[in-house]
Amino acid sequence: MVDIAIMGYGVVGSGVAEIITTHTQSLKKRAKEEINIKYILDIRDFPGNPLEDKFTKNFSDILNDDDVKVVVEVMGGLNPAYDYVKQCLEKGKSVVTSNKELVATKGAQLLQIARDKNVNFLFEASVGGGIPIIRPMSQCLAANDVIEIEGILNGTTNFILTKMIRDNMSFEDALSLAQSLGYAEKDPTADVEGYDALRKICILASLAYGKHVYPDGIHTEGISKITLDDVSYAEAWGGVIKLIGSVKKLDDGRLDIFVAPMILSKHNQLASVDDVFNGIMVKGDSTGDVVFYGKGAGKMPTASAVVADVIDCIKHFKARKYLYWADGDNSEYILPYGESVCAMYVRVKYADGVDIHSVVDDIFGGAQFINKQNPVENEAAFITNKMTVDHFHSLAEMLECNDVKIESQIRMGEE
Amino acid sequence: MVDIAIMGYGVVGSGVAEIITTHTQSLKKRAKEEINIKYILDIRDFPGNPLEDKFTKNFSDILNDDDVKVVVEVMGGLNPAYDYVKQCLEKGKSVVTSNKELVATKGAQLLQIARDKNVNFLFEASVGGGIPIIRPMSQCLAANDVIEIEGILNGTTNFILTKMIRDNMSFEDALSLAQSLGYAEKDPTADVEGYDALRKICILASLAYGKHVYPDGIHTEGISKITLDDVSYAEAWGGVIKLIGSVKKLDDGRLDIFVAPMILSKHNQLASVDDVFNGIMVKGDSTGDVVFYGKGAGKMPTASAVVADVIDCIKHFKARKYLYWADGDNSEYILPYGESVCAMYVRVKYADGVDIHSVVDDIFGGAQFINKQNPVENEAAFITNKMTVDHFHSLAEMLECNDVKIESQIRMGEE
Repeated sequence: MVDIAIMGYGVVGSGVAEIITTHTQSLKKRAKEEINIKYILDIRDFPGNPLEDKFTKNFSDILNDDDVKVVVEVMGGLNPAYDYVKQCLEKGKSVVTSNKELVATKGAQLLQIARDKNVNFLFEASVGGGIPIIRPMSQCLAANDVIEIEGILNGTTNFILTKMIRDNMSFEDALSLAQSLGYAEKDPTADVEGYDALRKICILASLAYGKHVYPDGIHTEGISKITLDDVSYAEAWGGVIKLIGSVKKLDDGRLDIFVAPMILSKHNQLASVDDVFNGIMVKGDSTGDVVFYGKGAGKMPTASAVVADVIDCIKHFKARKYLYWADGDNSEYILPYGESVCAMYVRVKYADGVDIHSVVDDIFGGAQFINKQNPVENEAAFITNKMTVDHFHSLAEMLECNDVKIESQIRMGEE
Repeated sequence: MVDIAIMGYGVVGSGVAEIITTHTQSLKKRAKEEINIKYILDIRDFPGNPLEDKFTKNFSDILNDDDVKVVVEVMGGLNPAYDYVKQCLEKGKSVVTSNKELVATKGAQLLQIARDKNVNFLFEASVGGGIPIIRPMSQCLAANDVIEIEGILNGTTNFILTKMIRDNMSFEDALSLAQSLGYAEKDPTADVEGYDALRKICILASLAYGKHVYPDGIHTEGISKITLDDVSYAEAWGGVIKLIGSVKKLDDGRLDIFVAPMILSKHNQLASVDDVFNGIMVKGDSTGDVVFYGKGAGKMPTASAVVADVIDCIKHFKARKYLYWADGDNSEYILPYGESVCAMYVRVKYADGVDIHSVVDDIFGGAQFINKQNPVENEAAFITNKMTVDHFHSLAEMLECNDVKIESQIRMGEE
């Protein structure tokens, strides 16, 4: 029998406890040991809970009990999660977490402690909820160099965009609906402005390239500026707008990494990933494109990924898993966003008398205008050739000098 | 340094050698050991090949060399692959294979020998080529009960169906095209009649349920009878025809498993898996639907999956992986196909004067007729209610007694 502790009895924590107490026999078969929840750490009381006698408010109960071999951290946030996890690892306990903020900002350091102490620090649930992605990337794709990762990593924003695209709902209405369904938090900033997706793409990038990629300073655009006008132009062009986390290894070894809304062709496999689902495309030099798809969040999917990691810890007490990346410095290997190359969708309003086609053609050296069914007077949308983001901005300024106002600009996905 | 041997220098075998010789440093980093190809077994000569000095025609060179710790079997077919693999495992060597026929028919026995000898027998590449599926299923989904697996498991037939659907090509023309592109063999039976997909769904079913599911006697229908008429009726209904391998665990514990063409609603995630791609949907009780998508075959994707298994063997010399299922007897847990429940698409021709709607309604107790743009005289297509396959057949016989001839019948996917 192996004793474990669960830190945090929120949505995911209670799901972990539920799986462990209801799947006892099948888990025992898979782990070759019975899993016993010895402690649940939470500052709240849960009177009448069947696990009531396991609850503690005192972290040191867990830290100082040498019987506890595996600690599950599902509190979320950096404090006190970081401090607790660090202490557990230093005490020689394996830790499993679903906490993407923790892994994205402190991963290298915690992985190093785990390595030094010969214990495991696993975090499958931190990206893609119940979709297996960390493990397949680190193991099955071991014989590949990862060239590119592109993912719909946040279910809340994908739900909002899907409602905008399918039901012509405004951003505000779709956000309210997401909140009323429990998909979005009261303060939706982390989802809507792309910070959640950023943490996840940083974790995947760190794993793929072996050096820690810190979220700080990486270009992050959310979806709050996306309008139904843009949705309909994208549709007229034959595409959909998705919030994408993307990282690509350039020939010079640097990483082109960002989070931004992008217009994807309907032929792109991620274009059909709708609602709260996540989809992650990993391009390996040998495998080609491999796509993982499923529910990226939610109590039971996330909890099941946590429990799978717990089983893995128990099976590997003697042979540590080789999940690892080194610490590093973004400035050494992250491409400044201004140097990132893409085609750009642009929607503009222009003054009466402006010959918009010739102005745009002159400035951008040609562009593909999008014709939609109900054209709006003095409005146009076009797609530029590929250029660096910096170059685009300098041309965009010239546009504004010609009585043309840019209403929105969205990266185009690769063909 | 770890010595390995490759048995079979065909498409996959030469890909494995290529990856190991070109990715030497990155593989060493991942495996923590350098991988050295000591022998390549093939009955053919490869004069001028840079690995020429590694070739042998004598299996006992490999078997009796105790330095060889991992053997890669990529010969295909049952003989002599089975005999060689068995001897290697009995000698205490780990074996990695891409041979689905071997795993589907001898898996339980070989896994038992591997367990007894405390070595690994891994076969990620046997299903889905470069798509990670065996490992995620056995590990990441460890905390789930697998309720259902449904997959497009054969790229050749998916290519043919895609050409029929998109380009209105006949089955024969699409098959010829697939052959000329090297996607289909000269004798395409194993692909076209569903046997290849059958082996793969049997491997996945064995892994998910812990008992060997033998291909023998499992209902297998291919796509050679699918016509463009059926494709257009499916389109009119709002679906596409895909060759599906499916296994579902019933409440009584039995497995409803088969390979058959099915009409999938365009909303089904597998409906958009086109061309030579594979897609596999795994439904867990906690995760919900998780879909894996990518190239299911091809030299480098398959070879990279083999090499990833080799790395895993090397990292786990001391702690054997827990990939395992027990031997079993299909008759104890496979639902007879006649008891499988589904709605059925039926296309019929009928004699002049037959009131087809009332005949079908009378016999089937109602059905959904499909209206297509250019109706064909004396032809109709409809979808029945759900019923057992046996019951469908008895009703279908009654149809034939009423001057109505069944031209084709295709299972409907679940909504």
